[in-house]
Amino acid sequence: MTDTAGLLFAVELVAVLGAAFSGFAESQRKDMDVVGVFTVAFVTAFGGGTLRDVLLERRPFFWVEHENYVILIFALSLLATPIMRHAHRIIPNVGFIAADAIGLGFFSIVGVSLALDAGMPTFTATMMGVITGVFGGVLRDVILNEVPIVLRDNRPYATTAFLGCWFYVLMRGVGAAEALALWTSAGLITATRLVAWRNDWSLK
Amino acid sequence: MTDTAGLLFAVELVAVLGAAFSGFAESQRKDMDVVGVFTVAFVTAFGGGTLRDVLLERRPFFWVEHENYVILIFALSLLATPIMRHAHRIIPNVGFIAADAIGLGFFSIVGVSLALDAGMPTFTATMMGVITGVFGGVLRDVILNEVPIVLRDNRPYATTAFLGCWFYVLMRGVGAAEALALWTSAGLITATRLVAWRNDWSLK
Amino acid sequence: MTDTAGLLFAVELVAVLGAAFSGFAESQRKDMDVVGVFTVAFVTAFGGGTLRDVLLERRPFFWVEHENYVILIFALSLLATPIMRHAHRIIPNVGFIAADAIGLGFFSIVGVSLALDAGMPTFTATMMGVITGVFGGVLRDVILNEVPIVLRDNRPYATTAFLGCWFYVLMRGVGAAEALALWTSAGLITATRLVAWRNDWSLK
Repeated sequence: MTDTAGLLFAVELVAVLGAAFSGFAESQRKDMDVVGVFTVAFVTAFGGGTLRDVLLERRPFFWVEHENYVILIFALSLLATPIMRHAHRIIPNVGFIAADAIGLGFFSIVGVSLALDAGMPTFTATMMGVITGVFGGVLRDVILNEVPIVLRDNRPYATTAFLGCWFYVLMRGVGAAEALALWTSAGLITATRLVAWRNDWSLK
Repeated sequence: MTDTAGLLFAVELVAVLGAAFSGFAESQRKDMDVVGVFTVAFVTAFGGGTLRDVLLERRPFFWVEHENYVILIFALSLLATPIMRHAHRIIPNVGFIAADAIGLGFFSIVGVSLALDAGMPTFTATMMGVITGVFGGVLRDVILNEVPIVLRDNRPYATTAFLGCWFYVLMRGVGAAEALALWTSAGLITATRLVAWRNDWSLK
Repeated sequence: MTDTAGLLFAVELVAVLGAAFSGFAESQRKDMDVVGVFTVAFVTAFGGGTLRDVLLERRPFFWVEHENYVILIFALSLLATPIMRHAHRIIPNVGFIAADAIGLGFFSIVGVSLALDAGMPTFTATMMGVITGVFGGVLRDVILNEVPIVLRDNRPYATTAFLGCWFYVLMRGVGAAEALALWTSAGLITATRLVAWRNDWSLK
């Protein structure tokens, strides 16, 4: 594994974990059994990256290449199901929002980074970043028969991903170290989303 | 760009605009902000063609090849959101139905045309045309948490696309000029759908 | 067609028919016209296998290679629509559950078998089997605006597919004849699912 690949792997691992936890939290609200919880977490954690790999024609899919991702989510689902059954009284809604924001931010930046590496034009690359960041949550909400959070929440969501992707493009443009660019941009999206959510910012 | 490619591009542009406007109208009903409107329009305008490109293994995807498509929808969303907020009291439901019928007709015909060019057998090619025409609207309705129009409307919808695709096959078969075949067949689907909708035709 | 290909084709045909009938039954409840019935059956019967073919990069898609599949579902939809309109008073809910269980079992086993043949690691291959088995029903339920049966039914569903896929891996491992391994494992999933459903087994 090259340095950049290892770096992207680490950023993506954070994204996978954030997305999976948002899946745990959301499926807990629906009072699902362990298989339902795993299914929702799986779809949330791997949906966005799979679509990205289809769009960029990357094979094998990232969760096929790193089989341990799936086993990790599998094991976490076994752990999370009994814990979440009690924890949801303790952990407030912000737990779900934060996990979802981590998935959004970190998947978006891995997405735009890989799209640029694949030679996509800049605007298309940022769109692919946003799609990668948003899509896992869309699948999670659609299979739970809800309007996706990207549509139902009037506080900035895709917008923070879009701006964060351009921030990453800018940092790459000025020659920042890849590690710095990746972590800062992803963290920026997550932080902006949380601030926007907390302060009830509205785009309307 | 060859003549045929330019022709297909023009027909597809009409389809993209029709689908995007149906997305504007539908997301307006749900009182969304500009990002929500863009998301819905994006999914409606590019969903069917992306699935078509996956089915036919065409790369790059049509909205990646023509980056301007995405920028156009982006700009239109910025314009449309404030306008639609007021216009939906003026423009009746028929505006949505007409935009949707244009997307249906023009995407179906581009789909069947490309499928035939890719060497698909005739029946499969017509099915792919229908899938291309229908799928954007299915995604639009699914992410808005509604039963897709292709299923909930008992007036002919997929049927008009199916018949129009066979009409196109017929015109190609008798050696009609490609331009004539494309525009006539696509227009025929849109017109038939609107007449069927207006007159409450039912297949039951 | 080699012997193994013919064998897989036969198992897959059972899966396609089971899935299609589950689509007929489910769309009948929603009182759809013949095109709606066909659309739902098409999506249910070909959705899982199409995703499998995308994941394994198999082209042409199985329903493109075997055009007769689509024509068969088309013809059956024409037949089934008027019949189901009356039969749903006679055929109880178990008809839908049984058809769905056949689709689940037989698609899962074809999926895991093709994934292993494509050189996927064992755990990934079993996950792909489950995804193939489950996905058609997920699409069916999502476009009908319901929570997918894999999530809403607390009786074992994906679990039976997962265990059945490992049973198939085991039989291949001990050198059982391919025909025996395929039919037994697929039948085992279907039977286990039905027993679990009948006896109200719960994973909670």
